[in-house]
Amino acid sequence: MSTPTPHTSDAELEQILAASALAAPVWAATPPAERASALIAVADALDQAAGELIPIGMRETGLAQARLTGELKRTTVQIRLFADVIRDGAYLDVRLDEADPDFVLGPRPDVRRMLVPVGVAVNFSASNFPFAFSVAGGDSAAALAAGCALIVKGHSGHPELSVATARVVEDALRAAGAPDGVFALVLGQQAGVTVLEDDRVDVGTFTGSIRVGRLLADKAAARPRPIQFYGELGSVNPVFVTAAALAERGEEIAAGYAASVAGSAGQLCTKPGFLWVPTTDAAGELELRVSQAAEQAAEHRLLNPSIGRAYLQRRADVLAADGVRVVAEGTVRSDDDGNVWATPTIVAVPASKLSAGDETLLDEVFGPFSVIVEYDDEASLAPSLDELYVGNLTGTVHAAAGEQSPALSSLVAGLARKTGRVLFGGWPTGVAVTPAMQHGGPYPATSNDTSTSVGTASISRFLRGVAYQGAPQEALPEPLQDANPWGVPQQRAAAGQSASWGSQR
Amino acid sequence: MSTPTPHTSDAELEQILAASALAAPVWAATPPAERASALIAVADALDQAAGELIPIGMRETGLAQARLTGELKRTTVQIRLFADVIRDGAYLDVRLDEADPDFVLGPRPDVRRMLVPVGVAVNFSASNFPFAFSVAGGDSAAALAAGCALIVKGHSGHPELSVATARVVEDALRAAGAPDGVFALVLGQQAGVTVLEDDRVDVGTFTGSIRVGRLLADKAAARPRPIQFYGELGSVNPVFVTAAALAERGEEIAAGYAASVAGSAGQLCTKPGFLWVPTTDAAGELELRVSQAAEQAAEHRLLNPSIGRAYLQRRADVLAADGVRVVAEGTVRSDDDGNVWATPTIVAVPASKLSAGDETLLDEVFGPFSVIVEYDDEASLAPSLDELYVGNLTGTVHAAAGEQSPALSSLVAGLARKTGRVLFGGWPTGVAVTPAMQHGGPYPATSNDTSTSVGTASISRFLRGVAYQGAPQEALPEPLQDANPWGVPQQRAAAGQSASWGSQR
Repeated sequence: MSTPTPHTSDAELEQILAASALAAPVWAATPPAERASALIAVADALDQAAGELIPIGMRETGLAQARLTGELKRTTVQIRLFADVIRDGAYLDVRLDEADPDFVLGPRPDVRRMLVPVGVAVNFSASNFPFAFSVAGGDSAAALAAGCALIVKGHSGHPELSVATARVVEDALRAAGAPDGVFALVLGQQAGVTVLEDDRVDVGTFTGSIRVGRLLADKAAARPRPIQFYGELGSVNPVFVTAAALAERGEEIAAGYAASVAGSAGQLCTKPGFLWVPTTDAAGELELRVSQAAEQAAEHRLLNPSIGRAYLQRRADVLAADGVRVVAEGTVRSDDDGNVWATPTIVAVPASKLSAGDETLLDEVFGPFSVIVEYDDEASLAPSLDELYVGNLTGTVHAAAGEQSPALSSLVAGLARKTGRVLFGGWPTGVAVTPAMQHGGPYPATSNDTSTSVGTASISRFLRGVAYQGAPQEALPEPLQDANPWGVPQQRAAAGQSASWGSQR
Repeated sequence: MSTPTPHTSDAELEQILAASALAAPVWAATPPAERASALIAVADALDQAAGELIPIGMRETGLAQARLTGELKRTTVQIRLFADVIRDGAYLDVRLDEADPDFVLGPRPDVRRMLVPVGVAVNFSASNFPFAFSVAGGDSAAALAAGCALIVKGHSGHPELSVATARVVEDALRAAGAPDGVFALVLGQQAGVTVLEDDRVDVGTFTGSIRVGRLLADKAAARPRPIQFYGELGSVNPVFVTAAALAERGEEIAAGYAASVAGSAGQLCTKPGFLWVPTTDAAGELELRVSQAAEQAAEHRLLNPSIGRAYLQRRADVLAADGVRVVAEGTVRSDDDGNVWATPTIVAVPASKLSAGDETLLDEVFGPFSVIVEYDDEASLAPSLDELYVGNLTGTVHAAAGEQSPALSSLVAGLARKTGRVLFGGWPTGVAVTPAMQHGGPYPATSNDTSTSVGTASISRFLRGVAYQGAPQEALPEPLQDANPWGVPQQRAAAGQSASWGSQR
C-alpha cells in the first residue's frame, strides 16, 4: 500500500538552488508591507484548503481530525502573526547614532544599523507537526517574513501533504507578486543534505531527533563557509510535584498528566516524560488515577512505521529496566501496513534507581509513555535535576498556592538554567504562539540555544546586522532614513549622550 | 631577550574552570545595577593603571604611546558603556504576554520571557589590540555585563600586559564584591583549547586569523555539547572610488587612504586592503600623492616576530605577482630580536589581473600594505565585488556629493550583502563604539554572522531566552514582575491583541 518516497532529482535541486539565490535579494528588497500581504494571502489560501489538506494529513500521519484542524489553524495564525511583526518593524532593531564631533573618543560619524535577511534558508520539516512545523510552519513563516528565500525539506512521513501544502503556498505567493523561486519544496534525505551543504544556502532550521539534528548541525558547521543551524532536537520535560501540591490538587494533577501524555499519542517534543512525586500515600492515589485515565485513552496510531518500531523498542527497554514498576501497561499492536497503534504506558521508579548517564531510563521515549519518579525529599529535587538531566525545552513545577521554600527556589533556579521554559502548574504540551514564547533550551534540546522556534522572537534566526556609516539619506534603506517612511521604531543615540562614558564616577 | 611564553598548568586550569562554573550562577543572579558598579570600578582601576600598563604594552607590541593611550581610553569607555546598557535593561528584551482566556487558539497562559546569561564565556584575545580586544576588551566587558563568568585566553604577543591587566581587573572586581572565580586569565595555546572544549564553558569569542579562528570554531562545534563561537577573523575592506569623487576630492582621498593604511602599521582588521580607482589621469595623480604620503610615514615595528615574518612573505608574494606595479615600495628590515620594521608598501594592478580565488592577490596582507586596483568602467564594480570578494567586515564607497547612478546603487546593495558595515566616504579604520555599530560580516569576516564584536549589540552573544509560564509574582525574576522593581522596558502583549490573527483580511 505504501508508495516509494519521492526524491527531488539533482537537476531539479540545481534549478531550485539557482532560483532561490536569484529570488533572495529581490524578496529582501520587497517592502515588509508587501511581504506581509503575501503572508496573509498564504494564510488565507491554507485556511481555504483545509478541506483538501486535513484528510491527506490524517491518512499519512494517523493524527486525528480535531488535532490537525487545530494545528492548521495554529499554522495560519502563526503566519498572520509574522505579518504583524514585519509591519510593525521593531524586529529590525533600528539604531541611529547621530554624528558627534565631541564624542569622548574623538569625532564620531553618523552610524545607522538595522537587521537584514541572511539570504536563503532551508527548513527541515518535522514528522509530528505536519502543518505547524512543516512546509508552512513556524520557521517557514519566520524565514519568509524576515525576507529570506525559503527551501523546505518535506518530511518523508507526509510527502503528499507536503506537496499539496507547497502547491497552496507557492500559488498564493505567486498571485501576491512574490518573486519566482522565493519558495520551493524538496523531498528526500539526500536532497536535504545537498541543499544544506550548498554554498548558496545561508541558514538552516530543523525539528526532529537528536541523532539527525546533530548530524545536520555538524554538516552545517563543516561547510567551507559554515552557517548557523537551528535544530530543535528533543526533550524529556521533567515535572516536579511538591507534597503540598499533591495534597491540594492530586486529582487535577493526575488528570492533567494523563491527558498531556496521551495527547497526539505522546508524539510531542514537550510531552512530560517524567513526573516527580513524593513517596506518600497521596502518590499511590495519584498513580491509581493516572492508571485509570490512561486505560480510558483511545488507541492511537503512531506517525509512521519507523517511529512505531522505535517506540516498541524503547518501551520494552524501559519496562525491562531494574526497579521499574508498571502503573498503566497500555497496549501496542502493529497493523498490516507496519504502523504501530498504542495506548499510554506509564511506569513508576524510585528516584534512587536513576543515575546520571543512564540512557535506558533517562532518554526520550517518543510516544505515549511516561515515567513517574518517586522521591523522598524535596531538598533532593534541585540536585537531582542538575545531576540527571541535560538541556530540556521545558521544566515544570507543581507547588501549592503560596508555597515557598529554599528547596523550591533552588529547583526553579535550576530549571531556568537547564531549560528554555519554566512552567508553574499546567503542562508543557500546547505551546502558545506569542511574543514571549521561548521554545528552545540548552543542548540537546536544541543545537543552538540563542533562539526560539515558536513565537515571534524566532525571526532573529534569519537576520544579521548591517551598519551604514556616513551615508546620504537617499542611499539609506527606508528604515534608516530620518523621514522613516515605513514608520518603524528607531532607537536614537543623540550626540552628547556619551559624555558620561568617559567620566570616572 | 625573549622569555618563554608562560602556560597555565592543567591543575590551574581545572581550578579556574571549577571556580568559573561556581561563580556563573552567582554573578548571573547579581542585580544589573551591582554588576554595572563593578564594571565602573574596573574601568576606573584601568584608567588609574594607565601609567603602569601602557609602557608594558609598548614594549611587548611595538605600538606607539599615543595609540595605546587612545586604545586604553576606548577600552574603559566601552566598559562604562556596557554598564549603562545593563542599567537600562532594554537588552533583556522583556516580553510579557498576559493570560488570555479568549485567545484565538484557545485559552492562553501568562507567559513572560527575558534573556539570561548563558553561563561561562571564554574570550580569546587579539594580537593587535592589546587593550580593546584583549583581557578587558569589548567581548570581556559584554560577557561580564551580561552576567557571564569570564575566562580570558591572553595573547602570546603580550603576556606581561595580559597578566598586569588581569590583576587590575581581578582586584577591582573583588573589591566591588563580585564573586570569586567570575574572572580569570589563562595563557598558552593548549590552555585556550582546553578551556574551549571543557563542558563547563558555554560560549566562545575570538579575534584573530581565519586559520586559527576556523580551527577553534570547528572545535566548539565538535564538542559533545556544541557551543556558539563568535570569531572575528579577517577582512580586506575594499574601497571603491568613483571618477566624480576622484575629480571632486582626489587629494583628500589620497591622504585619507595613505593614513588609513599606515596607522598602527596597517595591523587592523579594518585596514583598506584595496582601493578601486578609475583608469584616468586623476588616478595617476592620486597614486603620486599616495606614494609621497607613504614615503613620509615613519618606520613602525610589527607586533611580533611571527607577524613580521608573515608580512615579509605575503608582501614578497604580491610584489612578484603578474601585473603588479609598485606605487610606494616601502622599507622592511628585521632587528636583532627578530622583529620586523616597515614603512607602507602600496602597489597598483589593473582590475583585469584579478580573478576569483586568486589567493596571492586577494587574500589579506596583515601589515602596512595595500593594493590600488585600476578599473575601466563603473558598471563593472558591483559584478567585480560579487565575483572577487568573500565576506568582509566593511566596504566603502567614495562618491561625489549628490552622485547617483544605477552602478552606484548596485554597488551599495552588493556591499550590504557582502559586509557588515557600508561606509560612504571616510575610512573603515577607527570603529566607533556606539549602539549602532556593526563589527562583523559574512564568513570569513566572522565565523558567526549573527552578532557584532564592537558596540552594545554584542551583548546578545552572551544571552539566551527563558520563558516563565503561569508563574506567581514572587517566583518571577525582577525584570518579569508586574511591579518591575528594576524599571526595565517591558513589552506587553495584552489579552485581546491577537484577535486579528485569526481573521481573514
